[in-house]
Amino acid sequence: MPTYTPPLRDMQFVMHEVLKIADEYKAMPRHADVDVDTINAILEEGGKFASEVTFPLNIGGDEEGCRLNQETHEVTTPKGFKEAYHKYVEGGWPALSCDPEYGGQGLPIVVNQAFYEMLNSANQAWTMYPGLTHGAYEALHAHGTPEQKKTYLPKLTSGEWTGTMCLTEPHCGTDLGMLRTKAEPQADGTYKITGNKIFISAGEHDFVANIVHLVLARLPDAPQGSKGISLFIVPKFNVNKDGSLGSRNGVYCGGLEHKMGIHGNATAQIVLDGAVGTLVGEPNKGLQAMFVMMNAARIGVGMQSLGLTEVAFQNALAYAKDRIQMRSLSGVKAKDKPADPIIVHPDVRKMLLTAKAYAEGGRALSMFCSLLIDRELHHPDEKVRKESEELVALLTPIVKAFLTDNGHIATNACMQVFGGHGFIKEWGMEQFVRDNRINMIYEGTNTVQSLDLLGRKVLGNNGATLKKFGKMVAQLVEEEGVNEKMAEFINPVAYLGEQMTKFTTEIGFKGFQNPDEVGAAAVDYLRVAGHLVFGYFWARMAQVALREIAAGNTDPFYQAKLQTARFYFAKLFPETATLMRTARAGSKVLMDTDLALA
Amino acid sequence: MPTYTPPLRDMQFVMHEVLKIADEYKAMPRHADVDVDTINAILEEGGKFASEVTFPLNIGGDEEGCRLNQETHEVTTPKGFKEAYHKYVEGGWPALSCDPEYGGQGLPIVVNQAFYEMLNSANQAWTMYPGLTHGAYEALHAHGTPEQKKTYLPKLTSGEWTGTMCLTEPHCGTDLGMLRTKAEPQADGTYKITGNKIFISAGEHDFVANIVHLVLARLPDAPQGSKGISLFIVPKFNVNKDGSLGSRNGVYCGGLEHKMGIHGNATAQIVLDGAVGTLVGEPNKGLQAMFVMMNAARIGVGMQSLGLTEVAFQNALAYAKDRIQMRSLSGVKAKDKPADPIIVHPDVRKMLLTAKAYAEGGRALSMFCSLLIDRELHHPDEKVRKESEELVALLTPIVKAFLTDNGHIATNACMQVFGGHGFIKEWGMEQFVRDNRINMIYEGTNTVQSLDLLGRKVLGNNGATLKKFGKMVAQLVEEEGVNEKMAEFINPVAYLGEQMTKFTTEIGFKGFQNPDEVGAAAVDYLRVAGHLVFGYFWARMAQVALREIAAGNTDPFYQAKLQTARFYFAKLFPETATLMRTARAGSKVLMDTDLALA
Repeated sequence: MPTYTPPLRDMQFVMHEVLKIADEYKAMPRHADVDVDTINAILEEGGKFASEVTFPLNIGGDEEGCRLNQETHEVTTPKGFKEAYHKYVEGGWPALSCDPEYGGQGLPIVVNQAFYEMLNSANQAWTMYPGLTHGAYEALHAHGTPEQKKTYLPKLTSGEWTGTMCLTEPHCGTDLGMLRTKAEPQADGTYKITGNKIFISAGEHDFVANIVHLVLARLPDAPQGSKGISLFIVPKFNVNKDGSLGSRNGVYCGGLEHKMGIHGNATAQIVLDGAVGTLVGEPNKGLQAMFVMMNAARIGVGMQSLGLTEVAFQNALAYAKDRIQMRSLSGVKAKDKPADPIIVHPDVRKMLLTAKAYAEGGRALSMFCSLLIDRELHHPDEKVRKESEELVALLTPIVKAFLTDNGHIATNACMQVFGGHGFIKEWGMEQFVRDNRINMIYEGTNTVQSLDLLGRKVLGNNGATLKKFGKMVAQLVEEEGVNEKMAEFINPVAYLGEQMTKFTTEIGFKGFQNPDEVGAAAVDYLRVAGHLVFGYFWARMAQVALREIAAGNTDPFYQAKLQTARFYFAKLFPETATLMRTARAGSKVLMDTDLALA
Repeated sequence: MPTYTPPLRDMQFVMHEVLKIADEYKAMPRHADVDVDTINAILEEGGKFASEVTFPLNIGGDEEGCRLNQETHEVTTPKGFKEAYHKYVEGGWPALSCDPEYGGQGLPIVVNQAFYEMLNSANQAWTMYPGLTHGAYEALHAHGTPEQKKTYLPKLTSGEWTGTMCLTEPHCGTDLGMLRTKAEPQADGTYKITGNKIFISAGEHDFVANIVHLVLARLPDAPQGSKGISLFIVPKFNVNKDGSLGSRNGVYCGGLEHKMGIHGNATAQIVLDGAVGTLVGEPNKGLQAMFVMMNAARIGVGMQSLGLTEVAFQNALAYAKDRIQMRSLSGVKAKDKPADPIIVHPDVRKMLLTAKAYAEGGRALSMFCSLLIDRELHHPDEKVRKESEELVALLTPIVKAFLTDNGHIATNACMQVFGGHGFIKEWGMEQFVRDNRINMIYEGTNTVQSLDLLGRKVLGNNGATLKKFGKMVAQLVEEEGVNEKMAEFINPVAYLGEQMTKFTTEIGFKGFQNPDEVGAAAVDYLRVAGHLVFGYFWARMAQVALREIAAGNTDPFYQAKLQTARFYFAKLFPETATLMRTARAGSKVLMDTDLALA
């Protein structure tokens, strides 16, 4: 059976030593009182919740899955899931970073996201129930009417009710412009909503009394395509004026999907059979309103893979130290044993270090993004808010796609460390691979993320936001350019930064003549950008480690950090050499293939 | 539900137009009568068997899995599996390439392997039952006593009985030197065998009356380690002198593993409780005897992934043409539809072409290996036999590791083409990913294959065998060096060939000083070697296609082949740039990481 230890030390390193978040929060009135000890104490408790309450339910949840009663349309979640959720609610966890106006604790996003990393390590399927609720909370918080907010936000904040996002239909996922669900206005100001939704995560369950579905649908007079989509609240039970539950609404679970992974989460087919809904935001502006939660959800998906990468690494490391098999190529290491532990083998170490480097790089990047969101929401300086918003928009597709692709590489590598035992369910490793696999697909496939990055976020403003990130790189190069000890970490980043600038101009020019050039380069481009960003954060982490060591700090944590940084730059970062080459190979070899793909 | 069409045209292209196998067979007395029409007719029938009999059982087999009756120790296979096996036996398929002396049809290995590619596309879990039998057949054919051969080979050839390989024990897989199963000599010349084996594929089932286990065990006076292992036949039912079944032997299934994939195959824990066995080959030479079947099995595992790559490609291609979603970046393509089929998107094409290029490259390489085995077994010239043996030994780890890693990349890419639907079981795509995953692990993990390639097959004889493959490359370069149309296919291969030579010398030198350098480079090295070999075969396939086109052949197959070749060299082959760099980054960044991996 797998084990999990919350990576508190590394989280503290990123938060307090690299990003120095407490200093940042001093500038934000909302968070001015948040200090290092409070953050650490909360995450320590959060880690206990994840490792002691939801982690032990992970394998059982996968085995048992969710069951639908076809007559009542009610879903039974795996054993223990409901009780864990009630503990979660009792602990006040849903409210962590919610608005105090609606009962929230008003803590920074960084804290909540760090907590979510641990929840995802422990049990991604379970974590999706509160995770989706958080998305619904954010969309309503941004776009709900005062009455809607008053009715729903306190319940979502306390965790008394949960939420969903109902976007996908059988014939449309990426292309929401094609959606068919209808919303007919009623005399009382509500809407009668009819249609079929699929792939609705946490769409039905037995945790709580009510589920708040946020549903995209089309008004009768709506323009065609994505400009004719509106957002509605459709609760499972209608809510009376006094906030008590009324009649059962015409929204129910018609079926559950049988999936590769995340079995513990109910992926529901949701039938809307003249359900009563209320409009959120303006008519036909539903996609924009939904984007609020989609962006948060995309970073959330990256955190899911970060969590799985971390837990897979921990277990593979323990196995590699324990399992004895063959002798080291460079001579016997464990003389008292019939064979050496497999960690003596270079390639086993490579698999382990790949997961470790991706976990720690991903943690730094995603915490930085969360800090940017905190700045965007609460920094007093409008310019800082705006710049943070732009930068997080640039980094969001990278967090989503790069961290989930890395999670795929890392969980598979960690499974491979186990040899044949990795393929066996009881060890838990293959579940991490299966659960991670959806992260590369949902909330916009990783191809869609790459087009969002290159087409919209980079070329869409002629590289202006990318240049802002470039400035951060340039600043680091300036700070450390003469530090010989930093050269091995700074030089590759500086070099790639220059390459990226040329490369971006080149693709922009080619894409102007033929947009398929952008589509052909986008996936490779995102991975190069991912390494540029990871390289930057690895260099910053190395910088802190070197300073501590120079100051006489003998905590082995810092030497370990340097070892992992060296591994990253030597063995993972050079992937960019191929990616630049294949991106430059252009679109013709892809598009002139009608006979090959006949 | 997925579909499958046997790729007969491409098989014929490789067999008859690239490798010209019928000409080769004219030189071999055993196969002198084998002509093109016979081969094609057999494979057409074989394709029907795969697509019509075993393919329809694939998803059901995955859902149902195998069940063990704990009291009788009997295993029930999924619905239809047993009946399909009986049709397989009635069709004479088990005997295809077996020795006529024992009832076989004596056809070339190429034919049998091409048939197996299709069986694996159709249903890998089912195919492992006859596949393991074939391995047992080969080990007994090479090392059995005349009496053992007379007793067992006709039954394995007809398929009346099946076989297994019992190697792994709970504490040892790769490191068989540690195995503990005991074999005590009895007065009647038999052995009493006691121990526990795990991960025994096709280890127990309801297909046939008897199962012939080939078991590795240790004699009482055996030397320690791998030099003290002997091979035994341990039948499920003892066999009487007249060939009829006798008493139930003390070998039974103690449990079935719950696995990520290949659910339809019974992965058995086999308990040997004083079972009666007979020695195969010489005492303490069991590993050598087993290697006969392990080499064949390694190529067989590569064929499993080849089969999955092909079937995943076919289904992703069909989906990409059918599924409409978004518009082409370069303008509307399907004006009559609300969106364009997703095949218009460059990255969707890239995912499809990746699978196609890996399937067709893998088919050429593995058929060439099978031809080498035919030469090794039946060529009248001893020198040809020896050279073929050496070359197939070099290529075996490449077929095993490169094709299975490519299968991982390809099945995941094809699943990704389906978006959210790829994660849903009913589409069948995620099963291809799960089934393929074991291929990277069993029969020696891909790390073990890479050490076999670099340490033993390449450096072990100072690159002598590699140079033989280099000569094949050089010959092609000489033939086509002045052909401008071939330059795009020949130049990258020639360049990489030169690089490989330097690179090999370099690693050999470093490895001489520090063997961990070999371990650190091996996995990257194998992938570079894989691309060198694939590049060579893609160039040869392009050569044939260009000649046909020049001769006025208007079959679009040849243009399609060139399109895929161009894609391969532009988008997949350049991976070698990174691999050479990371391999050269050496072992220090892996080995000096005790603190990072504390």
